[in-house]
Amino acid sequence: MRSIITLLTDFGTADGYVGEMKGVLLSRAPDLQLVDISHEIPPQDVERARLTVARVWRRFPEGTVHLVVVDPGVGSSRAALAVQSEGRYLVGPDNGVLSPALLAANARAIELPLPATASATFHGRDVFAPAAAALALGERIDALGREAARPIIRRTPEPVRRPDGGIEGEIITVDRFGNAVTNLVGLRGGTISAGGRTLAVRHTYSEVSDGDPVAVVGSTGFIEIAVRNGSAAEILGLGRGERVILKSES
Amino acid sequence: MRSIITLLTDFGTADGYVGEMKGVLLSRAPDLQLVDISHEIPPQDVERARLTVARVWRRFPEGTVHLVVVDPGVGSSRAALAVQSEGRYLVGPDNGVLSPALLAANARAIELPLPATASATFHGRDVFAPAAAALALGERIDALGREAARPIIRRTPEPVRRPDGGIEGEIITVDRFGNAVTNLVGLRGGTISAGGRTLAVRHTYSEVSDGDPVAVVGSTGFIEIAVRNGSAAEILGLGRGERVILKSES
Amino acid sequence: MRSIITLLTDFGTADGYVGEMKGVLLSRAPDLQLVDISHEIPPQDVERARLTVARVWRRFPEGTVHLVVVDPGVGSSRAALAVQSEGRYLVGPDNGVLSPALLAANARAIELPLPATASATFHGRDVFAPAAAALALGERIDALGREAARPIIRRTPEPVRRPDGGIEGEIITVDRFGNAVTNLVGLRGGTISAGGRTLAVRHTYSEVSDGDPVAVVGSTGFIEIAVRNGSAAEILGLGRGERVILKSES
Repeated sequence: MRSIITLLTDFGTADGYVGEMKGVLLSRAPDLQLVDISHEIPPQDVERARLTVARVWRRFPEGTVHLVVVDPGVGSSRAALAVQSEGRYLVGPDNGVLSPALLAANARAIELPLPATASATFHGRDVFAPAAAALALGERIDALGREAARPIIRRTPEPVRRPDGGIEGEIITVDRFGNAVTNLVGLRGGTISAGGRTLAVRHTYSEVSDGDPVAVVGSTGFIEIAVRNGSAAEILGLGRGERVILKSES
Repeated sequence: MRSIITLLTDFGTADGYVGEMKGVLLSRAPDLQLVDISHEIPPQDVERARLTVARVWRRFPEGTVHLVVVDPGVGSSRAALAVQSEGRYLVGPDNGVLSPALLAANARAIELPLPATASATFHGRDVFAPAAAALALGERIDALGREAARPIIRRTPEPVRRPDGGIEGEIITVDRFGNAVTNLVGLRGGTISAGGRTLAVRHTYSEVSDGDPVAVVGSTGFIEIAVRNGSAAEILGLGRGERVILKSES
Repeated sequence: MRSIITLLTDFGTADGYVGEMKGVLLSRAPDLQLVDISHEIPPQDVERARLTVARVWRRFPEGTVHLVVVDPGVGSSRAALAVQSEGRYLVGPDNGVLSPALLAANARAIELPLPATASATFHGRDVFAPAAAALALGERIDALGREAARPIIRRTPEPVRRPDGGIEGEIITVDRFGNAVTNLVGLRGGTISAGGRTLAVRHTYSEVSDGDPVAVVGSTGFIEIAVRNGSAAEILGLGRGERVILKSES
C-alpha cells in the first residue's frame, strides 16, 4: 500500500508553489499517493486552515502524513514542526494550525531544523515537504529533530453561559455556501439568535422554503445558520466573530 | 490495477468537506486512485454539474466510480442513488445530476438506504462516499439497496424547428473562457444569431481576429459562440437560457 | 513505479474539460499517477503558465510527463509539441509555454501530427493527452512525430545596466499573495525602487511590521516586492511589466 500525503495550503495553484512541493515529494518518494485537501485557504488565514485540519486529519487512515503550509511567519523565528498523533503525522509551521492534532492525548511534536540551504520565504518546499516525504518513507519522527518545547495551541473559542440561562457563542467560520458555523454544540428544540433574528434549530435545510433562513446542527455537531439555497452570510450579514445566543425552548 | 474514484462537487475545497470525503474513501479503500473532476461547480448548480457529468463520465475506463455531490436537497426526502451504466458507476443525489448515465441503455439505478448515523447536511461524507468506496472495492451494486423506482431525469432542452426553416435553440452554459455553448448541433456553413448579432459558423477560433466574435462547432459537437481571446459572455452579453437561431446558408 | 503525468491548464475545472483529459489519460494508461499542477492559470495567459512551468518542470523525477495546455492558438496553424529535456517530457502547444525545457542543453522537440478526428477547439483532449499517455507508457518520443524545426521560445526579459550603475528590470508576475516578482537576481544589501518607493533588499518578510512593504530574495532567487501579510500589488499599485531599479548599497 502506498503512503498517503495530503496537502493543505493557502498558495493557490497558478504560481506553481504547490507544484514545486509536489515535485519535491515525488522526487523523494515517487510512489506516494498525493491528496489535495485545499490550496484555496484565504492567504495567511491560519484560523480557517486550523478548522479544516480539525475536520480532516483523523478521517484519513493511520500512517497518513498531512502537510499543512499556511505560514505567515515564514522566515521569522517561528519553529517548524512535525507532529505524531493518533497514528497520523502532520508537518507545518508552529502557529497553531496543527492544534487539532496537538491537543489529542499522547501527541508528540518535534522541532524540525532548518537546512542550511532553505530559502527564507518558502519552507513548504525546503523544510516541510522533505520532512513529510521522510515520514511517508517510514522515517521515525524522532529522527527528524528534537522534542518541541511548547507548540502554539489555538482553540475554538468556548461558549459562555449567561445569567439568563442562554449560551453565548460566536460564528467561527463562514463556508463556501455562505453557511455561518457557530461554536455552539447542537441542541435541537432550541432557538438561536444572531444578527437580530431568532431561529428554531431544525434538523435540515429543507425544512424551510428556498431563500428562508434556517439553523441546523451541522456535520461536525456545531449549529450552523444557513439560508436554503442562498448565502446566510450575505443575506443575513453574518461574519466570523459575530455573537450568537442559544436558548433552549421554554 | 487500482480502482478509480472521481469526485465532482460544488463544495470548494477550503472548508475541508472534500477532504473529509477523501478521508472516508481512503480509510475504506486505501489503494484507490482519487481523481478530482471539480469542486468549483457554482453552489447548488445541478444543471452545470449535469453537463460536466455528461462530458466526463464515459471518458473514464470501465469500473470507474464517479462520486457526484451537488445536492441542494440534502436532508429532504430526495433519494440517494448508485447507478451502473456502460460499465461505469455513479453515486449521487436523485436530482437529475446523474441523468447522462441514467439515459444510456441498460442503466440501472439503486436507491441507497441512509445509515442511522448519517448527518442531515452532509450525505457526501456519510452516504455517497461509503457507497462509492464499496463499489470501488468490488461490491455488486445490488448489494447496496433496492432498485430505484423512477430516478429524476434532466435533459438538455431540445431545439425546435421554426416555420421559417431556422432552428431555435438556447445557450445551455457559459464556460470559463466566456464561451457560450448552445444546444445546437454543429452545422458548418450555417449562421447563428444571438444577442442581436449573426455569425457564420466557422471551423475554429483563429479564423477571426483577436477580440472578434466567432461561432464554432465545439468539442462536444454543439455550436459555441466565442470571442477570440476574450469572453463572449461579457462582450456580447450572453447568458444561460438565451435564445439562439441557427440558419443554413441560403 | 507508476508513471507520473502532471497537468497545467487555464481551463478551470467546472466545465469538465480537465476531467475529459484525465479520462483520456486513464483510459489509455489506467495506472498513471496524475498530479494537478494548476487549472487556474488566467485564461490564455501563456506567460504566467511559462513561469509556472519554469518553477516546476525539473522538480519532478525523471520520466515525468508534463501536460501543459494554455493554448490561445488552438485550431490555428501553431504546431503541437512533445519535448524531451533532462529526462523529463513536456507536451503542449508551440507558443513558448514549454520554453524553460526547450532552453536546456540537449532538449529535443517533436512536432505532433493532428489526428484526423481531432476537434478544432480542444487539442488538450484530442492531441496532447494521447501523446502524454503514449510517453508515460514508454513510447519513444521519436515515434510520435518528426523533429520540430524551430519551436517558439519565450524568455524572461533581461535586466539592463544603466549608465548610473543601477540595474533596470521589471515585474514579471504578481503571485497569489500579491507579491510582485522581478527579473532581478537577488543582491542583499542593495535597494530596489518601484512605484515611487525605495526599499532595502532584506532576508525575509518578517523583518518588517505587518502591512509594511519589504523587498526580499524570493524562492527562485529573484527579488520580490511584498507587503507583510498584505498584497504589495494592491497596496503599492504594482503590476506585471512595471519598471524596477536595483542599486547596490553605496
